[in-house]
Amino acid sequence: MLIVLSGPSGVGKGTVRKALFDAGDTDFQYSISMTTRKPRDGERDGVDYFFVSKEQFEANIRDGEMLEYAKYVDNYYGTPLKYVNETLDSGKDVFLEIEVNGAMQVRANCPDAVFVFLTPPDLMELKHRLINRGTEEIEVINARIKQAVSEIKMMRNYDYAVVNDEVENAVNGIRTIIRSERLRVTRVMPDYEQMIGDVE
Amino acid sequence: MLIVLSGPSGVGKGTVRKALFDAGDTDFQYSISMTTRKPRDGERDGVDYFFVSKEQFEANIRDGEMLEYAKYVDNYYGTPLKYVNETLDSGKDVFLEIEVNGAMQVRANCPDAVFVFLTPPDLMELKHRLINRGTEEIEVINARIKQAVSEIKMMRNYDYAVVNDEVENAVNGIRTIIRSERLRVTRVMPDYEQMIGDVE
Repeated sequence: MLIVLSGPSGVGKGTVRKALFDAGDTDFQYSISMTTRKPRDGERDGVDYFFVSKEQFEANIRDGEMLEYAKYVDNYYGTPLKYVNETLDSGKDVFLEIEVNGAMQVRANCPDAVFVFLTPPDLMELKHRLINRGTEEIEVINARIKQAVSEIKMMRNYDYAVVNDEVENAVNGIRTIIRSERLRVTRVMPDYEQMIGDVE
Repeated sequence: MLIVLSGPSGVGKGTVRKALFDAGDTDFQYSISMTTRKPRDGERDGVDYFFVSKEQFEANIRDGEMLEYAKYVDNYYGTPLKYVNETLDSGKDVFLEIEVNGAMQVRANCPDAVFVFLTPPDLMELKHRLINRGTEEIEVINARIKQAVSEIKMMRNYDYAVVNDEVENAVNGIRTIIRSERLRVTRVMPDYEQMIGDVE
């Protein structure tokens, strides 16, 4: 099973992902991203990212070796297909934490993956806050509404929405989704059918 | 949200449902079944069942007032539509524990409901057990294989499969599924869309 965590910029995807894996009792693998940007202090190749040259990254794209990728401020970021496939083939679940554009590329290639959208904590409070319109400038309100509409439209392409009000709540929500998805008939059925085939 | 728990006869649906509600921290409503059989000692109308006459039950069927029903040994059993609809309209989730035929009637009427199949504990151990064929009589083995094939075919019509190896595990599985389903984008989206409509 491939699990994709995404959400709007600044929602806290990295923090939630880190808390999820820091807890230590995860039985799925984090897929390390590949990038052409230079390592920052303390970052290690193969731990924080796979650091490669621009030429190498573009060769990977050309050869169909990236599950998803994007370019931000002159640097490439993406998910190498090889690690994901090898981990899935070994029977382990893979967890990706990526930007929304990348998530849509994964959706196109892997429709069976589980897509989780991390929602800004104030999205549902927006209505409540906007009832008291006098307290905020009209430009601020309009900008926030526009952004909210855009975020809600993104959300439509996902299977689940988890509110990042508290990191711990978000982590629990993601854990619950993964446990529940493992009980899906479509995921356990092949095992049962193989068993029946073996005994018949 | 309508949650339907079903599974083959004798799998322990009633025991699991009782344990789920006895825990007391459920935030969904159990839908009481209607029956034409006589109350047993200690059974109360409106608690264990709605006890009605055969004429009343048949009138309900005629008037389209049953979400699902079946006849066993001359008695009708079924789910009155009214209570389910009223509870769902009040914003609460409804939990049904019914036979497989009834579950398929609900599936036809309410495709958005969540269907959980309770699996016999030995279904996945069948292969292991049958490897040592010498230990059981061939008729017993063949009967069990036939039954397993039939159970696995039923399972295909459900969203989730929960193994009833221990009542506690089964209850936890069902809780996880319900919590996870509440995070589904298709379920939370109408709230977000309404909010956007309200503020725009």
